[in-house]
Amino acid sequence: MPCNAPIGVFDSGIGGLTVAREIMRQIPGETIIYFGDTARVPYGSKSQKTIITYSRQIVKFLQTKNVKAIVIACNTASALALETVAKEVSIPVIGVVKPGAKVASMTTKNGNVGIIGTEATINSGIYNTYIKELNPEVRVYGKACPLFVPLVEEGWLTDPVTVEVAKRYISSLLEINIDTLVLGCTHYPLIRNIIGPIVGEDVTLVNPAYETAIELKQVLMQESLENAGPAGEHKFYVSDGADKFKRFANTILPCDVVETEDVNIESFADSLLASC
Amino acid sequence: MPCNAPIGVFDSGIGGLTVAREIMRQIPGETIIYFGDTARVPYGSKSQKTIITYSRQIVKFLQTKNVKAIVIACNTASALALETVAKEVSIPVIGVVKPGAKVASMTTKNGNVGIIGTEATINSGIYNTYIKELNPEVRVYGKACPLFVPLVEEGWLTDPVTVEVAKRYISSLLEINIDTLVLGCTHYPLIRNIIGPIVGEDVTLVNPAYETAIELKQVLMQESLENAGPAGEHKFYVSDGADKFKRFANTILPCDVVETEDVNIESFADSLLASC
Repeated sequence: MPCNAPIGVFDSGIGGLTVAREIMRQIPGETIIYFGDTARVPYGSKSQKTIITYSRQIVKFLQTKNVKAIVIACNTASALALETVAKEVSIPVIGVVKPGAKVASMTTKNGNVGIIGTEATINSGIYNTYIKELNPEVRVYGKACPLFVPLVEEGWLTDPVTVEVAKRYISSLLEINIDTLVLGCTHYPLIRNIIGPIVGEDVTLVNPAYETAIELKQVLMQESLENAGPAGEHKFYVSDGADKFKRFANTILPCDVVETEDVNIESFADSLLASC
Repeated sequence: MPCNAPIGVFDSGIGGLTVAREIMRQIPGETIIYFGDTARVPYGSKSQKTIITYSRQIVKFLQTKNVKAIVIACNTASALALETVAKEVSIPVIGVVKPGAKVASMTTKNGNVGIIGTEATINSGIYNTYIKELNPEVRVYGKACPLFVPLVEEGWLTDPVTVEVAKRYISSLLEINIDTLVLGCTHYPLIRNIIGPIVGEDVTLVNPAYETAIELKQVLMQESLENAGPAGEHKFYVSDGADKFKRFANTILPCDVVETEDVNIESFADSLLASC
């Protein structure tokens, strides 16, 4: 696998752009092939079986672009599909959950960590599993926040309604006296300015996107896959609404997204084993 | 086609159950095969191309169940895909938009009709087209309400947050002095108790589900396809989360939903012409 091969990054939609942005900042020599599954967003209310099917199709698509590593820039898919798809390909596959869990376990002082995420991520209990592996003393409290993604997609990033919904969701975690809160969905950093004041200064917010870029850098070094740079042109693919995606991406990313392309993602068969 | 063949009813998810319920009430002799595309819900933010692809797959699936007619119990799919798929099959296909438009045009006295629905339905302008065909004097004002579906799915059917969001969405329509408001998404009748007090007694709410069942009855009569009854067992299929769907269906429907079944809907090819 040549070092100048691109990194595949995928998400259920636009949220993973916050992870792509961190990779561009921290590892500027790498080229990104991004896929957003905008036709089938959101993933957070779907079953594990469906998330695995969709993730397999996307991994298969990314492999046609000869990526040297894959970042699952979606908490739900990281929680429910990473383990399965990572076994089925020969390139490194990393997710956002493990890096987020790592920093949460190192950040907490009183041992009470809150996780907010989609229904699927919270119900999987995966943050609890990873954090307990690192430090069995830490207590992990999850809270599903299903309205956050639609509120972000609606663009109500500073709206009183979003503040009220956030207070409602987060109050039970504050009662438990958490000192660390993981933003366990890639959309949530976009309402960090609402969540921050609600939890107050004594609670540290953890954004897994930042830690994921660090983890990717380490994995590329270990596997001798780093690119000296400069990066090639980043490319963006979606399963629906390429123009709408492009407009949003240009408000998030430091680079100029010139073109996005629609992909018929269902045409990528639900099996990776044959091609590996 | 035998008269005791079932009626296919489909929606992006659970909302179409409000239409299935009306059919059961008004035409109790008919058997229903329901499909909810719970894996790919919501449709309201997707492109026409994608909605047509998904609708074709579902129509193809319903045809394997030998349905004698199809009801598209989803405003978005009725708005964006009905015309295309109806041409590709030889059985009657009816949607919820035309019946809703018909009653709205007959209800309004001052000629100001409001439509609330998903982004895709409102942007299609289809209610405007149909209502203008029936009465060119009527003025139609659309307002997309993208947060209503997630709020209903979250179960916040009487919540102050939902009231506040509804006030925000509907206020611009009230300023225009509408006297008729079409609930242009099958989820919205479930928050009728919130919408009603906001618009007040002078505004008539139109629920297309009711009119759609009447239209279906008429079409079956015209085509001599009515079943004398009794109805067979209604069957329910979904693309994800059969158990979750069953629990919700049992709170909506007058009959007991004993079993729901998962279907791999993507395996139904995106072409109807070959099979017809």
